[in-house]
Amino acid sequence: MEVAVWLPFLAVAAALGFAGYLVWSIRREDMGPEKVREIHGVIKVGAKAFLNRQYKTLLSFMVIVGVALGLAINWQTGVSFIVGACSSAAAGYIGMTVAVEANARTAAAAKQGVGKALRIAFKGGAVTGLLMVGLALLGLTVFYTLWRDPILFAGFGFGGSIVALFARIGGGIYTKSADVGADLVGKVEAGIPEGDPRNPAVIADFVGDNVGDDAGMAADLFETYAVTMIGAMLLAVIPTVSALKVVEGGAAIYNEAKLVYPLMLGAIALFATIIGTFAVRTGGKGKPSTAILQGIVVTAIISIIGFYLLTTGLGLSMGIFYAAIVGVVVTVLLAVINNYYTSYAYRPTRSISEASQAGPAVNLISGLATGLESPALPVIVIAASIPIAFFLAGGAANIIDGFYGVAVAVMAMLSIAGIIVSVDAFGPIVDNANGIAEMAELGEDIRAGLDPLDALGNTTKSLTKAFAIGSAGLAALSLLFAYLVEVVRGMIHLNPEAFAKVTFQEALLSVVDKVTLMSPKVILGLFIGGVLVLLFASLCMRGVAKGAFSMVNEVRRQFREIKGLMEGKAKPDYARCVDISVRTALKNMAPPGLVVIIPPIIIGFVVGWEALAGLLIGATVTGLAMAIFMATGGAAWDNAKKYIELGNYGGKGSPAHAAAVVGDTVGDPFKDTAGPAINPMIKAINMLSVILAPLFLLLAFL
Amino acid sequence: MEVAVWLPFLAVAAALGFAGYLVWSIRREDMGPEKVREIHGVIKVGAKAFLNRQYKTLLSFMVIVGVALGLAINWQTGVSFIVGACSSAAAGYIGMTVAVEANARTAAAAKQGVGKALRIAFKGGAVTGLLMVGLALLGLTVFYTLWRDPILFAGFGFGGSIVALFARIGGGIYTKSADVGADLVGKVEAGIPEGDPRNPAVIADFVGDNVGDDAGMAADLFETYAVTMIGAMLLAVIPTVSALKVVEGGAAIYNEAKLVYPLMLGAIALFATIIGTFAVRTGGKGKPSTAILQGIVVTAIISIIGFYLLTTGLGLSMGIFYAAIVGVVVTVLLAVINNYYTSYAYRPTRSISEASQAGPAVNLISGLATGLESPALPVIVIAASIPIAFFLAGGAANIIDGFYGVAVAVMAMLSIAGIIVSVDAFGPIVDNANGIAEMAELGEDIRAGLDPLDALGNTTKSLTKAFAIGSAGLAALSLLFAYLVEVVRGMIHLNPEAFAKVTFQEALLSVVDKVTLMSPKVILGLFIGGVLVLLFASLCMRGVAKGAFSMVNEVRRQFREIKGLMEGKAKPDYARCVDISVRTALKNMAPPGLVVIIPPIIIGFVVGWEALAGLLIGATVTGLAMAIFMATGGAAWDNAKKYIELGNYGGKGSPAHAAAVVGDTVGDPFKDTAGPAINPMIKAINMLSVILAPLFLLLAFL
Repeated sequence: MEVAVWLPFLAVAAALGFAGYLVWSIRREDMGPEKVREIHGVIKVGAKAFLNRQYKTLLSFMVIVGVALGLAINWQTGVSFIVGACSSAAAGYIGMTVAVEANARTAAAAKQGVGKALRIAFKGGAVTGLLMVGLALLGLTVFYTLWRDPILFAGFGFGGSIVALFARIGGGIYTKSADVGADLVGKVEAGIPEGDPRNPAVIADFVGDNVGDDAGMAADLFETYAVTMIGAMLLAVIPTVSALKVVEGGAAIYNEAKLVYPLMLGAIALFATIIGTFAVRTGGKGKPSTAILQGIVVTAIISIIGFYLLTTGLGLSMGIFYAAIVGVVVTVLLAVINNYYTSYAYRPTRSISEASQAGPAVNLISGLATGLESPALPVIVIAASIPIAFFLAGGAANIIDGFYGVAVAVMAMLSIAGIIVSVDAFGPIVDNANGIAEMAELGEDIRAGLDPLDALGNTTKSLTKAFAIGSAGLAALSLLFAYLVEVVRGMIHLNPEAFAKVTFQEALLSVVDKVTLMSPKVILGLFIGGVLVLLFASLCMRGVAKGAFSMVNEVRRQFREIKGLMEGKAKPDYARCVDISVRTALKNMAPPGLVVIIPPIIIGFVVGWEALAGLLIGATVTGLAMAIFMATGGAAWDNAKKYIELGNYGGKGSPAHAAAVVGDTVGDPFKDTAGPAINPMIKAINMLSVILAPLFLLLAFL
Repeated sequence: MEVAVWLPFLAVAAALGFAGYLVWSIRREDMGPEKVREIHGVIKVGAKAFLNRQYKTLLSFMVIVGVALGLAINWQTGVSFIVGACSSAAAGYIGMTVAVEANARTAAAAKQGVGKALRIAFKGGAVTGLLMVGLALLGLTVFYTLWRDPILFAGFGFGGSIVALFARIGGGIYTKSADVGADLVGKVEAGIPEGDPRNPAVIADFVGDNVGDDAGMAADLFETYAVTMIGAMLLAVIPTVSALKVVEGGAAIYNEAKLVYPLMLGAIALFATIIGTFAVRTGGKGKPSTAILQGIVVTAIISIIGFYLLTTGLGLSMGIFYAAIVGVVVTVLLAVINNYYTSYAYRPTRSISEASQAGPAVNLISGLATGLESPALPVIVIAASIPIAFFLAGGAANIIDGFYGVAVAVMAMLSIAGIIVSVDAFGPIVDNANGIAEMAELGEDIRAGLDPLDALGNTTKSLTKAFAIGSAGLAALSLLFAYLVEVVRGMIHLNPEAFAKVTFQEALLSVVDKVTLMSPKVILGLFIGGVLVLLFASLCMRGVAKGAFSMVNEVRRQFREIKGLMEGKAKPDYARCVDISVRTALKNMAPPGLVVIIPPIIIGFVVGWEALAGLLIGATVTGLAMAIFMATGGAAWDNAKKYIELGNYGGKGSPAHAAAVVGDTVGDPFKDTAGPAINPMIKAINMLSVILAPLFLLLAFL
């Protein structure tokens, strides 16, 4: 078996094996007192019940779409689509299950110190990270072994995107309906602490954290990884022969080294990630943030060395290696900028805390100002990386090489995805552990141990979002290019005579020349793509508004009608609140999802393929800015509140704190529903276009 | 003298003469009781003092820029820039002065019934509308008569854009700092009504309404008109001869009819506007909204008939006339959609009112959802109009004809600008009259007479914003095309040999082919253009946050420290609040303004002209969506509050009302600062690029 296949398989085996070991070692840990076990049981049942219902709805839809794709395009696309959807769902499901197990054990372990708690939480996160990357790489390697041509298994990425999209929307609406409802009535109106067992929405809130942050995020990063790699592989198989040979089915000469490069790059990075997880250690008094940083740095360094050896080994140009370095640098810069905007050590977040003294409205205006400012630097970094990677990889001489360079830069970013997800998944585990500790009344000393971990979790969570959306912005470009390649293929098939005398690349350039900024169809597409992002975000927010509204009314009703609830003599009706979240999420996840899928199809069929190209980039440009605005703004609002809780501007219970809670609540659906859902949204419409390109052309010719 | 010159001059003379008559007839009206006179005097002094300071700062900056442009480009550009800046400032200044006179008299006239008050308010608005269009058309006709070539007086539009930009930012920060501060402490904390003389920020609030809504809006629409017409004229002078002839200075054959068409179209529309103002009449019991609708419809119908006669008279293709019809249809659709999203008769605004019952956070989430949804339909209308106007005007055969068609469509939209501004300027006059009536304690019956006019004013205000930004989106495309034409001219001058054998139009098409969506430089520009809009909006919001923060603290301090204030025994210190608004506005108007001017220059010089083309369209795409989001969202929040005040969901004083006030306050800087400022922002960067294009090329060749 060739190295391009066995190396990825070996990496996958190592990752899955190691993940299995981690699961075993987590389950061995003690869950502590009975109360923790009890809460753990309730969360587990609630989370699984929701995912089962969500996936059942979703998977029947996916099978229908898969069959349709199989009939309309080819059977491989249909099969790979369904496999991708199931893998993404599995990644989310397993990731969440592990997180639920780790939550309770982290809460219990906090008694024995921060170090132990950190270890369990990070192990839980690492399982998700390794599994997500492992499953994606496994699927891609299997399909590559079977079919070789990545366009045949583009459906794998598309299936993953669609599941991730609905997982993000549904999970996001679930968790934020519960969270907003619980906070507004519990914390603001009734004045009881977060996670207080008297709050009827507290269980829905816990379950939401798992289905939103864990399952949603795992599915999201699974698709990010799969789609990015498919994008890179698609750019490696652009034929260098005459256009007609492509139709005749003659041996189109691909660059085999470029085709397997992404797979092997992924394999190397996966090994690096496994080693990196061992670097996450606190000696005893080491800071948790240092431990995590160690893990990321070790992974990045090993990856870079591996990339260098791989690039020379495959005999590829050094320009491609430099493009990979660009990707790593982008990740580091995004992390630094994200930290500046969301940590309360710096001006942006503190300005929100300060503004809270003038009431909720000024807190909100200030938070919106900070949020709207936050995309500037990340977008400049990403925008600058495009021509840099493009020209380093030889784009000046050959546009295909240039975009391959951009694709490799994103692959390099994703090489550290495994460790970043580990760190991200760690966030909600600690968050939940903290909540469980509160609800199980484990005592103040345990909370004190978990609190610094919780703040760290906030930062890592927003880091992943910045990272995911940044990579999405770049990956979308590879996919747009791949889309145009498919358009050319389709054109050649439909009208071979017109391409009798040109090479495939010349045909491609003639198509690229048609998507200028001065084509009225392209302009139409650009405008519609831009506004689609806002409409999508609106529908996500609307879902949360509806859910939160019902939740607030329900919690108010229970406080009012259940006698002895506030005195702790009666139990609230947790199940009704869970039910509100479930119903709101399932009912409201369809509209935003369909807004992503339907308009590109209409534009492609009615206005044409040029307009769709415009739509794709319009959505990417606006989506990148909006996603960072929402994710960072939301995190800044959250940490501005935390800064006040440290005792600044009056501290907990002051009017400034009340104002900051309103801001935090408004930021919730920004950062956990609409913002992160834009990432799979951008990739879903791009994958959709790549796959349906032949159909758009076919109809235009009828 | 040729008809193309005397017809516009005649129209300008008629408009200015009629405006003079209206001013005279307003000044003849009685200002009523002494208290109204007193308040009127204070507002007048405050408003003029601010504009004097703002313009002084601004005009010295403009003179420096004008001289620099004169030296770097040519003296005509410098001169026309300064003239444009002064005209825009004059339009704002006169418009505001008239509005201040009309405010007090409308308040006094309300005693004699709605009909009389409506008449005075509308007269005041009509002065602004007629003056704004008249001054712009006057300047353009004079420059056309003198120099003929519109590229020489492109500076006129650019100067107007820059003044409008700063007027919108400065005025917007002034008015919203005062408004937010007055509302938050007065209405929310102290529970006194809006406009109550005990509120220290009330005078700053009144002054703000005039400098923001009146002066800012007049300058804004002056530049919209001037820039749009220059854009259309630039597309008419693209040479049809060989490229080299352009360099040799030989008689480049322009299409004279196409060049004068926009000027004559403007003249016809101005006559139609004068006639339209007479149609604004309420019989006695007619509804005010019907009266205003009559005016718009009459203007539109006369304009369309005139356009038809003009098009046939000049012997131009009927396709151009159809493109003009597209523009009129777009305006009508934008008005209908805007009404749906901002009136409390419909779901979007009511959903915010309903959500307010669950507190401010859910009101805000719901309002953001509505705001983010609102651009979808308007952007689809605008996006669809582009290929329609393009192909109707013959774009399939000749891209230049196509974009000329798009430019004519915007000109047709603007043909009803005069009447729309009249209606818009009417809004703040009634708003202020209502406030003055409250402060002068004229009695409940007068308020009751003014209240329906106030609600109508809210709708007309948001209509103008939708209209202005919609036209900006289309005008930006003409300007982008004009920018590429300038790039070609520059290239030919720098390297004549390369263009020896092609026509100018062939050279142009070869340049257009370089701005494809797959150019990494264009992509970089697209991303940066998109994020620039968010950064700009952020800095505007930040200015308001700072001003509101200081204002809240000052008002709180006065309530606390001035003995007897709440009992009406002592007077508040109005001047200090005015001073806070003035200082905040002047200090914070520079950063957003510079963010608009500096980055395009850096991108143009450092990355190149292709990247700047990307930046322009990226900013237009994102700017259009964001501007509508902010303007419509803000208006919906405002009217959601008004719907509750009608007695729904608990009415005034209920918790839902308190929540809605927070939402309204957050919406304030959206709809009156950041949102409307995006319109001149988009045009300023486009004009800047058109004018500086030769420099970008020159440096690239060094």
